[in-house]
Amino acid sequence: MLSNWNGYLDENQDRFLEEFFELLRIPSISADPAYAKDVRAAAEWVGERLKKAGIEHVQMLETGGHPVIYGDWLHAEGKPTVLIYGHFDVQPAEPLELWDSDPFEPVIKDGKVFARAATDMKGNLLLPIVACEALLQTDGALPVNIKFLFEGEEEIGSRSFSSFLDAHQDLLTCDLVISADSGVGTEDQPTVGTGVRGVFSAQINVKTAAMDMHSGFGGGIAPNAIHELVRILDSMRDENGRILIDGFYDQVHLLTDEEKKQIADFDAFPDAMRENVGFKEFYGEPEFTPMERGVARPTLEVNGIWGGYQGAGGKTVIPCEAHAKITARLVPDQEPKKIQKLFEQHVKAHTFRSVEVSIEDEHGTPPYRVPGNDPALRKLERVLEELTGHPVKRQWAGGSVPVTSLFKRVLGAETLSLGGSQDDERPHAPNEFYRLSSFTRIQKAYCLFLQELAKK
Amino acid sequence: MLSNWNGYLDENQDRFLEEFFELLRIPSISADPAYAKDVRAAAEWVGERLKKAGIEHVQMLETGGHPVIYGDWLHAEGKPTVLIYGHFDVQPAEPLELWDSDPFEPVIKDGKVFARAATDMKGNLLLPIVACEALLQTDGALPVNIKFLFEGEEEIGSRSFSSFLDAHQDLLTCDLVISADSGVGTEDQPTVGTGVRGVFSAQINVKTAAMDMHSGFGGGIAPNAIHELVRILDSMRDENGRILIDGFYDQVHLLTDEEKKQIADFDAFPDAMRENVGFKEFYGEPEFTPMERGVARPTLEVNGIWGGYQGAGGKTVIPCEAHAKITARLVPDQEPKKIQKLFEQHVKAHTFRSVEVSIEDEHGTPPYRVPGNDPALRKLERVLEELTGHPVKRQWAGGSVPVTSLFKRVLGAETLSLGGSQDDERPHAPNEFYRLSSFTRIQKAYCLFLQELAKK
Repeated sequence: MLSNWNGYLDENQDRFLEEFFELLRIPSISADPAYAKDVRAAAEWVGERLKKAGIEHVQMLETGGHPVIYGDWLHAEGKPTVLIYGHFDVQPAEPLELWDSDPFEPVIKDGKVFARAATDMKGNLLLPIVACEALLQTDGALPVNIKFLFEGEEEIGSRSFSSFLDAHQDLLTCDLVISADSGVGTEDQPTVGTGVRGVFSAQINVKTAAMDMHSGFGGGIAPNAIHELVRILDSMRDENGRILIDGFYDQVHLLTDEEKKQIADFDAFPDAMRENVGFKEFYGEPEFTPMERGVARPTLEVNGIWGGYQGAGGKTVIPCEAHAKITARLVPDQEPKKIQKLFEQHVKAHTFRSVEVSIEDEHGTPPYRVPGNDPALRKLERVLEELTGHPVKRQWAGGSVPVTSLFKRVLGAETLSLGGSQDDERPHAPNEFYRLSSFTRIQKAYCLFLQELAKK
Repeated sequence: MLSNWNGYLDENQDRFLEEFFELLRIPSISADPAYAKDVRAAAEWVGERLKKAGIEHVQMLETGGHPVIYGDWLHAEGKPTVLIYGHFDVQPAEPLELWDSDPFEPVIKDGKVFARAATDMKGNLLLPIVACEALLQTDGALPVNIKFLFEGEEEIGSRSFSSFLDAHQDLLTCDLVISADSGVGTEDQPTVGTGVRGVFSAQINVKTAAMDMHSGFGGGIAPNAIHELVRILDSMRDENGRILIDGFYDQVHLLTDEEKKQIADFDAFPDAMRENVGFKEFYGEPEFTPMERGVARPTLEVNGIWGGYQGAGGKTVIPCEAHAKITARLVPDQEPKKIQKLFEQHVKAHTFRSVEVSIEDEHGTPPYRVPGNDPALRKLERVLEELTGHPVKRQWAGGSVPVTSLFKRVLGAETLSLGGSQDDERPHAPNEFYRLSSFTRIQKAYCLFLQELAKK
């Protein structure tokens, strides 16, 4: 079954690793406009890398936001067309002081690469590229038609991607999407992702006055923006994490017994997470298991808060401004637009007195599920079973891949996930890492899966 | 009644203003260790200025924290000894973007000096110094014995000052303290301060895990430090600003009808503040007037809050740490130690689950009232009535002068206030300013008051 491409991959791993490091060194932080040129530099790097692999029609396409990189190889007549999706943008690296090494200068320790975006997803991005290079260099052709599509706004909710897809529907038409922004479990326990949560995000700004006040003069007389914000935020969740926004759960799909059983296959995951991250007790609605809450229940989290004096020592001030960033994870059949409306209504209802509260930066993406009987899903499961020698489990993820539901809507294609990330690799957090063993293993999985997809 | 000192003051105003500007340019921010050398530079500047005025025994005394400047003139045999108190440290200047000009480069507009510490209290600090210089240069002597005591930690709760006073009780013994860190109303409506609130301050730190988490993976499973902090903070006040800490009001002195009447004299103050600061509605316990709440009721305010991602765009993270700075203003007969205990009990009672909550930087100072029949108080009232031609009103302030109760305890002396600050001058806030008309008027008030104190 393994052909020459396997030897090619083995022989070129040192070079692939150097390329991985080159890409990691580009701080392509899409959230911060100060890094826009780095996002573009990462796009250019990826485009050049595709060309080097033998991919054709490589081009940078503008979106209005950060650019997209496209490339294809379309000479497998009569075979399906697969669109491979990923992103070259990364999360901010803050808090910098919690990193053991420079987030943008990768280091290897114990077979792991430590850097921002090591696992999310610059390692994964290279997997299908080097797989196609190996196939082209050894077989002289790819088994199926391939289109690559890498974006630069995944970490900010893929906000330009919807209109981009609409505008390039013909170019991107395909039979199947593979998202490389993912993992397929461990070598001992392979998994396939069959669902992700959606997300709704927003920033709340509270303004109580034109300027800060001395807390001696104004205390007892003037409103305090932090207290007003705290009251609004505290009104959104009860002490068990249940969301108190009216109607928030109305569209939530109730789990079937079969779904509960499938989720329970992963009940060890929250325990491992707790140990890894170092929190002491699980948190969330007590009538669900931690794993059910983690993948099949919606959440609402304050991701950041700030207002008033944050420096050393004290400052006796009544702050006139306070801010919070919030995201909610959504599950079938919640709709982001509906959640946005409920969120806005809630904030309005809990805004007391004549305080100015504004909501900005609202965006959302729906949850997504792969149909259980999808034929490509079965092929992916067979490949992973062959490669690892273990039966594959189907898994829903708690995170979001905003584009999955977009691909379904615009291209009519389902999205499968094939990547090398594992759950303990600290995506979005300090000391993010990626296992080199995944880097080599999943390159092979890509070659095998593309070959499998060529079969009837 | 005015003697040569009056002419001396008039002739030297330009120089005094230059000196004021010199002192304002020193960023003596006591809260931030990065500015410790600037606090010391301000101390040295003040010491040199005292010597120039003819004050003797000028010395810098160490406190363990920022230093103190002492100087005296003790040749008025048989006359009372007056200790003049002030501070040369300043509040941080943040948020810098709200300043119209550099906070440490004073500018004059419309007869006002704009700079950090213009009104709190580098202008006021110079008043008694130039007054003594004028008296010594023209009369050759001071009418009473004078001790100057300027500290560098007032803006951080005078935390070393208590043990400093205990250690220097003999050096500082006196019959009366005058605090220059204050105001005496306007030219049209002179006031004397007869009370200040106390203060209790603390920082709350919440830690839920060893590292931040991806909100997709941990949402529904892990606790969020910001939500835990928000819940604790929201539990401390109801929506009217009434403090919900058990026992917090137990020691609060209930206002007499006479006290209510005295407070009502200043009912225009909250309206002016509201217009000046730009908030829309008064905030606080509805059963008290805004002015009663502002000077005779305790408060609790979050002065600053931070946690998670605060940069541009979004970051889908569950933060493992969150922090808040808090101050409470205290009124007779509340005791800071008791409030500290109640505060700690409240935080503990509202700390849910196995989350680490720590309280740090706790310190406090009791409230203070001048006895209504104090003879020096009557003399100060007479001086202000003569100087302005208007009857003087007695006024309680909402702010705190931590040292007043200390002077009473350690030196057995009452503290009167004589300074040039007015309520609208934005102490602790951006675009702080000080009126040049106060600068000249209160210099004269000092000369007159010292002469008055020499009389039987």
